[in-house]
Amino acid sequence: MDSMLIDAFWSEILGTAMLTLLGGGVVATVLLPKSKGFNGGWLLINWGWGLAVFIAVYVAHKSGAHLNPAVTLGLFSADQPFAVLHDAAGAVTGTIAPTVPHMFMYFAAEMIGAFVGAVIMFIAFKQHFDEDVDAGSKLAVFSTGPAIRSYGWNFITEVIATFVLVFFVVISGKTPSGLGPFAVALVVVSIGASLGGPTGYAINPARDLGPRIAHFILPIRGKGSSDWAYSWVPVAGPLVGAVLAGVLGRVYG
Amino acid sequence: MDSMLIDAFWSEILGTAMLTLLGGGVVATVLLPKSKGFNGGWLLINWGWGLAVFIAVYVAHKSGAHLNPAVTLGLFSADQPFAVLHDAAGAVTGTIAPTVPHMFMYFAAEMIGAFVGAVIMFIAFKQHFDEDVDAGSKLAVFSTGPAIRSYGWNFITEVIATFVLVFFVVISGKTPSGLGPFAVALVVVSIGASLGGPTGYAINPARDLGPRIAHFILPIRGKGSSDWAYSWVPVAGPLVGAVLAGVLGRVYG
Amino acid sequence: MDSMLIDAFWSEILGTAMLTLLGGGVVATVLLPKSKGFNGGWLLINWGWGLAVFIAVYVAHKSGAHLNPAVTLGLFSADQPFAVLHDAAGAVTGTIAPTVPHMFMYFAAEMIGAFVGAVIMFIAFKQHFDEDVDAGSKLAVFSTGPAIRSYGWNFITEVIATFVLVFFVVISGKTPSGLGPFAVALVVVSIGASLGGPTGYAINPARDLGPRIAHFILPIRGKGSSDWAYSWVPVAGPLVGAVLAGVLGRVYG
Amino acid sequence: MDSMLIDAFWSEILGTAMLTLLGGGVVATVLLPKSKGFNGGWLLINWGWGLAVFIAVYVAHKSGAHLNPAVTLGLFSADQPFAVLHDAAGAVTGTIAPTVPHMFMYFAAEMIGAFVGAVIMFIAFKQHFDEDVDAGSKLAVFSTGPAIRSYGWNFITEVIATFVLVFFVVISGKTPSGLGPFAVALVVVSIGASLGGPTGYAINPARDLGPRIAHFILPIRGKGSSDWAYSWVPVAGPLVGAVLAGVLGRVYG
Repeated sequence: MDSMLIDAFWSEILGTAMLTLLGGGVVATVLLPKSKGFNGGWLLINWGWGLAVFIAVYVAHKSGAHLNPAVTLGLFSADQPFAVLHDAAGAVTGTIAPTVPHMFMYFAAEMIGAFVGAVIMFIAFKQHFDEDVDAGSKLAVFSTGPAIRSYGWNFITEVIATFVLVFFVVISGKTPSGLGPFAVALVVVSIGASLGGPTGYAINPARDLGPRIAHFILPIRGKGSSDWAYSWVPVAGPLVGAVLAGVLGRVYG
Repeated sequence: MDSMLIDAFWSEILGTAMLTLLGGGVVATVLLPKSKGFNGGWLLINWGWGLAVFIAVYVAHKSGAHLNPAVTLGLFSADQPFAVLHDAAGAVTGTIAPTVPHMFMYFAAEMIGAFVGAVIMFIAFKQHFDEDVDAGSKLAVFSTGPAIRSYGWNFITEVIATFVLVFFVVISGKTPSGLGPFAVALVVVSIGASLGGPTGYAINPARDLGPRIAHFILPIRGKGSSDWAYSWVPVAGPLVGAVLAGVLGRVYG
Repeated sequence: MDSMLIDAFWSEILGTAMLTLLGGGVVATVLLPKSKGFNGGWLLINWGWGLAVFIAVYVAHKSGAHLNPAVTLGLFSADQPFAVLHDAAGAVTGTIAPTVPHMFMYFAAEMIGAFVGAVIMFIAFKQHFDEDVDAGSKLAVFSTGPAIRSYGWNFITEVIATFVLVFFVVISGKTPSGLGPFAVALVVVSIGASLGGPTGYAINPARDLGPRIAHFILPIRGKGSSDWAYSWVPVAGPLVGAVLAGVLGRVYG
Repeated sequence: MDSMLIDAFWSEILGTAMLTLLGGGVVATVLLPKSKGFNGGWLLINWGWGLAVFIAVYVAHKSGAHLNPAVTLGLFSADQPFAVLHDAAGAVTGTIAPTVPHMFMYFAAEMIGAFVGAVIMFIAFKQHFDEDVDAGSKLAVFSTGPAIRSYGWNFITEVIATFVLVFFVVISGKTPSGLGPFAVALVVVSIGASLGGPTGYAINPARDLGPRIAHFILPIRGKGSSDWAYSWVPVAGPLVGAVLAGVLGRVYG
C-alpha cells in the first residue's frame, strides 16, 4: 500500500470523525437537557449536519472526502475515481481508482472515523448525558430511528434520500461552481429539511452504524437499547440508493 | 428532434421531479403528524424550497434548468436562449433557441417532472399521509392554497412574486458571481420569506399543477378536494408575472 | 445628463423598489394575521431583509447598487466612485464620480424607489392589511420604530449599526471573494441579528422614510399614526454613521 | 516596529472589536427584555456569531484576521505565517512571521479589541440593559458560562470545540474555494450549533476575557458577579485546543 493510500485512509478516518462529532453534537445540543440549544428545532439540526459535512470535506481532502460508504459505493457504481488529488498549484498528483480493495479500505476508514467521532462527541456532552432524559433521546444523539416504525417504508425513505445525495455527487463531479464543499453541505441541509422527517436521514451507513456501536459500548447513564433490530435499515437503504444513483448518473452524466 | 433536445427534455423532467420531490418534502416534513420536523416553521419551508431549486439546477444542467414554465415563458418574452450548453472545458457546444415549439417541449417536460416528483415524495412520506390530519394539510403538501381566498388578490400576489423570480433570471443571465445555482436558490428563499405569506408562493405553474394532479390521482388516505377552483391562480399568475418580467428585462437589460 | 446617469437613476429606483418590496414583505409575512409565515421569528426577518438586499443588488447593477442614502453618503465621504461599470467582458465602460449633484440624484432615486416598493408590497398583502391587528404592527411593516423610545439612545444605536454596514462597503470595495452580492446580504443579516434589537435596524434613510410616506398616503384599513416624531432618527442616525464610516474607511483603507 | 506591524496591530484591534460588538449584540438581542429579537433561539445566536466573524475578517484584512488568541497560537504551533499580505493586484507585499513577539502583539490587540467591542455593544443596547432581567443574562451577553458547572468537563468541551476551529484554519490555509471569509464563518456557525450547548462556545480567550473585563468595569444596572471563578476555562481550554490543532495540523497537513 503506497503512501497516497495511507494518507487517504487517515484522511477518511479524520473526516468521518469530524462528521459524527459535529453531527452527533447538533442532535445532542437540541435533545439533551440543559444544553443551551435545547429544543432548537429541526432547521438547527439540518444546518448542523450540513455544516458538519462542510468542515469534514476540508478535513478529508486527501481522500476525496467521501465520509460515507454510500458515496464510495455510488462512485464505484458510476465508475468514477474515488479521489483526484492536487498539489497547491492545482496540478494533479494522483488518482485513487474505484476498485473493490479501495472500496473496502474506504468502508473501514469511514466506520472507524464514525465510531471515534461519536466517542469524542460523548465526551464533549458527558454531563448532559448524565441528566435524566428518556433513553430514546440518548440513542437518537448517536443513531437514527424511525418516526413511524415500518422497516419497509423506512427503507424506501432512506433509499430515496440517499439517491438524492449520491446522484448530486456523481453528476456534480464534486467540484461545483466556486462553492466547493459548501455545495454538498447545502445538499445535506436540503435532504434533512425535505426528506428527513420519516427516518431522521441516516443517508450514510457509517454515520449510523459507527455511532450505534459507540452507543452500545459506552457507559452512558440510563441508556436503553441500541435498537439493533432497526440498524440494518440505515445501512441497506443508503447502499441501495447509492447504487441506483451511481448507475443512473452513469447513464445520464 | 436532435439528441440535444432529447437530452434537454429528459434533463427538464429529472430536474423538475427533483424540485417537487424536495419541495413537497419540506412541506410534508412541517405539516404531517409525527414527522421529525413537524411544526418546523416558515423559515424551514423557505430554505427547503430554495435548496430544492439548488439541487434541481444541478440535475437539469442539460436544459438550462428552467424547472418552471414561468421561467421558460419569461426567457421567451425576453428573447433569451433557453439554454447555452458547455463541455467540461467550458466551450459552448450548443444553444437551444427560444422558439414556440421548444417552449411547449419545456412545458411538457416540466409538467411531467413535477407530477413524478410529487409521486415519489408521497412514497417517501406514505406512512405520515396515513396519519390523521385535516385534508387541507394533505393538499398543502402537494399544491399551494390562499391564506385568504380571493382569486383577484391571490392572482396579483402570484404575479408580483413571480415577477421577482423571472426578472432576476432574465437580468442575471443565470450565471452570477461564483455562486452558480446558489444565487437562484437564495432568490427563491427570499421570495418565500417575503412574498409567500398570502398564497404560499407557487411562482411556478408546473410546481403547482403537476402535484395537484398527483394529489387528485393518488390513493391518499382521508384526502379531500384537490381545490380545482383555485388551480388556475397559480398557473395564470406566474405566467403573467413572467411575461411582465421578460418584457421589462428586455427593455432594462 | 448623459445616458449612463439616466440608466443609473432608473437602476437605483428599480433596485430600491425591489428592496422595500421584499424587505417590507418579510415583515408583513411575520406580523400580519393569517399570513402563512405569521410569527416566523427574528431570524426569518433577518434573512428576509438580507436576501432583499441580495436581489436588489443584482437589479441595480447599473448604479453600483447603493440602495441607501447612507451608502451614497459613505462613499462620498470616503471619496470612492459611486459606480464603476463594466461590459459583459469585464472591461470598464464608465465611472460615476462621487460629486454632490450625483449624490442628490442618488438620494432622489432611492427615495422614489423605496416609496414605490412599499406600495407594491401593500398591494401584495392587501387582504392581510384588511385584517384586524394593532395599528403599530401595520406601521412596522413599512417603517422602523424603537423597542424602547428614547430618541438619543435610538439615534446612537442607528449610528453604530449603520457604521458597520458602510464601513464594510467602503473597505470591501464592494467586490469581495467570489460571493458578489451575497457578501453584503450576509452583512445585512448580521446587522439585523446583532444590532437590530433596539430599533429594528433602519440603517437606511430611504428604506425608512419612503415607506413611511407610503404608509401616510395609502388607504390602509385601521392604520394609526405614521409616527413622524420618530421619523428623523432613522434618517439622521444612518447619515451620521455613514460619515463616520466613510471617514474612518478613508483613513484605514 | 515597522508600519506593516503597526497596521496589523490596528487591524487586529478593529476586527476583534467588530467581532465582540456583533457577537455580543446577537446575544443581547436574544436575551435582553424588549429587544425585537427576544427569545430568537439558538440558531439565531449561531448565525449571529458566525456572521460577526465574517465581517470581522474583512475588517482585519491587514493582520490575517486572527481575531482570536487561539488562532494566533494555533498558527504559531503549526509554524504558519500569521499573515500573508497582498496588494490590490494580488501580489504578495509582506509576511508576518509566527514569532513570539508577534504573538504577544496579536494577543494584546485582540484583548484590546474585544474589550472595546463589548463597550460599544453595551452602548448600543444601553436601554435594554436597564431593564429588569436576572444578572446571569446580563453577564451572558458579555461572556460565556457553563450550562452545567464542572470546570474539568467544561474545559474539555472548550478544548474540543476550539480544536475544530483551529484545525480548520490550519489545514484550509484560510483561503478556501471562492467562499473567502464565509468559510470560516460557516465553521463558527457549525461549532456553535454542534458543540456550543455545554459551555456557550467561547473558543476564543479574548472574546471571553475582554468582554468580561468590560462587564466588570461598566456601570450596568443590576449586574451581578463577573464570575471570575469560571474565567480561566474559556481562556485555557481554547489555548490547549489550539496547540493540539496546530501540532496535528502540522503533521497532517
